[in-house]
Formats: sequence, C-alpha cells, structure tokens
Amino acid sequence: MGLLVVGSIALDSVETPFGSNADALGGSATFFGYAATVFHPVLAVGVVGDDFPEVELQRLAERGVDLAGVERVAGESFRWKGKYSYDLRNRETLDTRLGVFADFEPRLPDAYRDAKLVFLGNIDPALQLKVLDQVRRPDLVACDTMNYWIQSERETLMALLERIDLLMVNDAEARQLSGDWNVYRAARWILQHGPRMVIIKQGEYGAVLVDETGIFYVPAFPLEEIRDPTGAGDAFAGGFMGHLARSGDLTHANLRRAMVFGATAGSFAVERFSVERFLEIGVAEFTARARAFSDLVHFDTDGMGDHDG
Amino acid sequence: MGLLVVGSIALDSVETPFGSNADALGGSATFFGYAATVFHPVLAVGVVGDDFPEVELQRLAERGVDLAGVERVAGESFRWKGKYSYDLRNRETLDTRLGVFADFEPRLPDAYRDAKLVFLGNIDPALQLKVLDQVRRPDLVACDTMNYWIQSERETLMALLERIDLLMVNDAEARQLSGDWNVYRAARWILQHGPRMVIIKQGEYGAVLVDETGIFYVPAFPLEEIRDPTGAGDAFAGGFMGHLARSGDLTHANLRRAMVFGATAGSFAVERFSVERFLEIGVAEFTARARAFSDLVHFDTDGMGDHDG
Repeated sequence: MGLLVVGSIALDSVETPFGSNADALGGSATFFGYAATVFHPVLAVGVVGDDFPEVELQRLAERGVDLAGVERVAGESFRWKGKYSYDLRNRETLDTRLGVFADFEPRLPDAYRDAKLVFLGNIDPALQLKVLDQVRRPDLVACDTMNYWIQSERETLMALLERIDLLMVNDAEARQLSGDWNVYRAARWILQHGPRMVIIKQGEYGAVLVDETGIFYVPAFPLEEIRDPTGAGDAFAGGFMGHLARSGDLTHANLRRAMVFGATAGSFAVERFSVERFLEIGVAEFTARARAFSDLVHFDTDGMGDHDG
Repeated sequence: MGLLVVGSIALDSVETPFGSNADALGGSATFFGYAATVFHPVLAVGVVGDDFPEVELQRLAERGVDLAGVERVAGESFRWKGKYSYDLRNRETLDTRLGVFADFEPRLPDAYRDAKLVFLGNIDPALQLKVLDQVRRPDLVACDTMNYWIQSERETLMALLERIDLLMVNDAEARQLSGDWNVYRAARWILQHGPRMVIIKQGEYGAVLVDETGIFYVPAFPLEEIRDPTGAGDAFAGGFMGHLARSGDLTHANLRRAMVFGATAGSFAVERFSVERFLEIGVAEFTARARAFSDLVHFDTDGMGDHDG
C-alpha cells in the first residue's frame, strides 16, 4: 500500500543532559521516514533549502524514502534548536527558523496521489488540508498536530478532523483540543468530531488507541538509557503506519500490532540523538523488540477466579 | 495464608474538584483492608483514639478485618486534611494531626505472629521494623514508604530494606530513594539493596513490577470519572496482597495476576471518596474488571513477522 508522509525535513540542534548536537537531521517527515522504512517505502512531501546536506538526502533515498515530492529551493532549511530538562520531561525551544518552510506549498507528484495510507505530520492544518485535497482515495488518513495550531488555527483544524480517520496526539494536545483533562473523555470528544480512531501518546508511559471497539494500551518499552526524546512521536507514527503499509491489513487486531510497532519505533528513536539509532538496526532487531512487548504485559487469566466469584 | 497489615487508621478531610468530605474513613491500613478483604481476611495493627466512630470499626470487622491488633486509646485519632489540584495530579497537605499515632507502639497479638503475608504500610520505618520483629516466619513481606521517611530516616529505612521481599513505592519515591530519575535504573538500585522485587506505582499511568525474571507492566484501568485519588496506592497493595493470600501462590505468574488485582483495587478506590466504592462492589464486579485488563493490553503476535525478518 502506498504510504505518504508530509512534514518537516529539518536540521535540529538539541541539548540534553547526555550531550548535544548541531544541525543534525531532524523533522517530522524524517523521523517518520526512518521508522516506517524499516517495513515499507515512503513517499515524502516537504521542502529543503539549498543548504541541506546532500548526503542526508541520499541516505533517505537509499533507505526507501522517495524524495520526488520534496522541493529543493533557494534559502535556508527549517531549523529547530531546543534544550531538555535533566529528566527529559520538559523541553524549551531556544530557536525556530522556518526558512524555506515559510512559503511551503505542498505539491504531490502524480504517482503520490494514489497513496492508500497518509500521515499528515505536524504542520499548519491548512497545508495538511492541501495535501489531502491532492490524494485520490486513501484508505486511512492519520494526522498529528500541536498546541500552536490548536490555539491559532482551531477552525481549520476542526475542518481537517472531519476528513481524517485517525488523530495521533499527545495527552497535553488531547486535553487542549477537547478542553477536558481526562484523556478518555478527551478521546471520546475527539471521536465525536470526525476521526473514527484516536491515539493519545503519553511519552515515557506509553500510548492508548481508542476506537469504537474499545481501548488498547501499549506501555513504553522499558529503557535504562534515554539520550534524546526528539522525534519519538513521529517515529511512533512511522512504525505504526509502516507496519500497516507492509501488511495491507487495517483490521482492529492489526492496528493493535501497529501500536506495538509504533511504541517500538519510539523507543529506538530516544536511545540516540537524531535518527542515529535507526542506522544501527534492521527489521530483525526491530521485530524482536516489538515481540518483547508481549511478555511485558502478559498475564494468565486462569487463576483469577470467575466473573461470578 | 494469614495476611497482616500495619498502618494508619485515620479520619481524612479531602477536597477535590468533585466535592469534599470531612473526617471520613481513611488511612493506609483502612484502604488496604477494604481492598484485600474482597478476597481474604486481614489482621490489622494500628491505633485509634477514643473519638473514632464505633460504626466504622464495626464495619471493618464485619468486612473481615481483625481488629485485635488495633489499640483504642484516649486522645484524638490521626487526621489528615488535603486538597487536590483541578486535574488531581497534585495535592497539598493542609493539616496533619498525629494524635494518638504519635506514641504508637505496635504490639502484635500472638495469633498475628504466624502471618505469612505482611504489608508494612507507610509509617515510620522504625515502627515497621518493630512489627517485622514480632512476625515469626513470613513468606512475603511488602513495604511502602514516603518522601518524608526517605529523607529523615534513611538509615533505618535502608536497614529495613534488607529484611523485606518487596518494596512498593511510587515513581517519585523510587527516584528519591535511589537518586536516579530513570525508574528502571531506580528499580535495579533498589533490587541491589535488599528486596528481591519492587513495584513502582505510576498513578494514572499504571504500575511496574521488576524482579529477577524481568519486568511486568500493568496500565491503570481507563476511567472517565475519578473523584478522589486518596488511598489508591494502599488499595493497590490490598488488592495485590489479598489475591496472594487467597491463592496461596507466590509464583511469578501469580504475582502478575496480583498486579492486575492491585490495579483493579486502585481503580475502584479513586472512583468515589474515602472507601465508598468498596461498599458497592463484591468479588464478582472486582474480578470482572480485573479480567478486562486482558483485552486492554492484548495483541496477537501472529502477523508481526519473524525475529529474523
């Protein structure tokens, strides 16, 4: 199944208690692409400036990210600079330079328009809508957003919600969007406003999928070393959508497996800076970790007593 | 298996965004007792003042809490007054009055000394040690503590750790005790200082059991209505230990089930003020909710691909 992503392809400068980097590969489409291509090729839509390292574009292409939809224009690439707190729970944005992203108008190559799976990375909802307008008949459209758009582009975002299948946000975003601090009530509110599925990411604690059949919870993979949380959510989306694309199976049972692959991708993302960890692993190591989630949560209901006491 | 708890039997005045109460039944031994007696009788050690409502003691006794180890002395009962934030995530202690608890010296009736399962609720570690000194040959000793004792009675607490099997703390306490912000490294630190098992409670996110066999994660039960978080941790311990006592099975597989019963007990505790919810439910409703955790986390590993790709 054709898998399309629109999002930022950026240069990040990140400082955590465990180190720092400068102008390293970052951006939502990038993290998504590195995770998803463990399983399936990706059609990318985005823009980079003429300062963007050619070697990184080559590496993305070699990995299976089709860059026909990525414009290269004169000017500076999108740059983000941030610093994390000692426990990695909070981060401060030190600088954001939109560069060529400020005038970005997504244009899909014709071959992209038949993509069956679409991930609208966290960009202006007006641009997310423009991408959606160019896709012919997608089977599943997933969408991320952030506090900035929820506040400043609420009307556009609500119009977008009516056209997507799956909203994938973190708990703070779900609360802000719905106005409800309880994540399960927030999820229900979201399901009443368009999407038929919602995934609420809870960082170091895991993620929850809510749809009409009920609730599925996947914990975060237990890690003793976390170096850089940047990109974890986009990697989650990449692992999730990549598995759906390779399996071609959109049943609820397979969405649960996709959640586990998403959590797996997020756990690899945070172990190193930038996309470094994805350069070290292949499908075997990825799959082995995903399978390990089974033991992490498994208990045998035999020996729990009956419903009727 | 004889199940013993030492802890506070208190009168709580709690304010949450959903209401308030005054001098309602509270305390660690109380919440533990209400949860554990869903499955098994409890031997309680504690103290109350002469102002303690006789009707509450009668109700505890009728439920299966043996009060032979609970002294009734002249003076005021232990009282706690607290107020929760709008999202129930933070609480402020407005008043603590130790009353008769200030001079509490735990004395176990002889029949208690053969208890096989012991829960040392959150009290001064010196008192927890005194209880342990009076128990003959327990099979499993579990222990809770809090930031106050970790800071002010660290040496005694460390001596206690060498004599217990299971430390049951929340994530902030695990971090404070170990000096490590990563909960899995904190768990490993704790396992190197005495206990062979550690449970780290993560409030609205769930709880994790770490022992030599690995890691087991149980999420919190998804609730749309939470009224009062007071006592959730002690109810967790009660559900956990109550299941172990009724089953008499201390294997790792059964400890996983006990974790689920703990999470179930915690979820009931927070749905109403004080112990109110436990008055409404029996073993059937309790067991049905515990069994529902299975669907909450279950995914089928068929269709995830092989380890070798």
